[in-house]
Amino acid sequence: MIFNVEVKISLKKGMLNPESSTIERALDLLGYKVKNTDTIDIITFQIDEKNEEKVLEEVDDMCQRLLCNPVIHDYEITINS
Amino acid sequence: MIFNVEVKISLKKGMLNPESSTIERALDLLGYKVKNTDTIDIITFQIDEKNEEKVLEEVDDMCQRLLCNPVIHDYEITINS
Repeated sequence: MIFNVEVKISLKKGMLNPESSTIERALDLLGYKVKNTDTIDIITFQIDEKNEEKVLEEVDDMCQRLLCNPVIHDYEITINS
Repeated sequence: MIFNVEVKISLKKGMLNPESSTIERALDLLGYKVKNTDTIDIITFQIDEKNEEKVLEEVDDMCQRLLCNPVIHDYEITINS
């Protein structure tokens, strides 16, 4: 059975985010005053598995091993069949 | 008035996405069979403006000038007050 998976990856609270501070500074140089800038990465893919529990287990494993760094990242898995 | 802005940036259909193909290959090496991998970037920030129309106009300008490359990217702006 084909499942559509979405993994939302963001930095944990308190972690320095060089990407967002660079964006905020660059926008400031262009004359835009913004604050609390943050960045989130989303990875979507399809996987063929027996059931949703198996998918969740595998995707969690993917996150731990490859897709993000559990020390500095939070991740959220969304599964749709 | 403070507005919460979310900009969702993705590559246009048909564009080669080296990041997602690298992810798919790496997952394959770890033994995970996934397909149709895609990546989406989200930038969130707060902006102080008079009204929502002005915010939309400014954020669209930010997208055109800095946040993405309109030739290869699609972007979606979400504004919450």
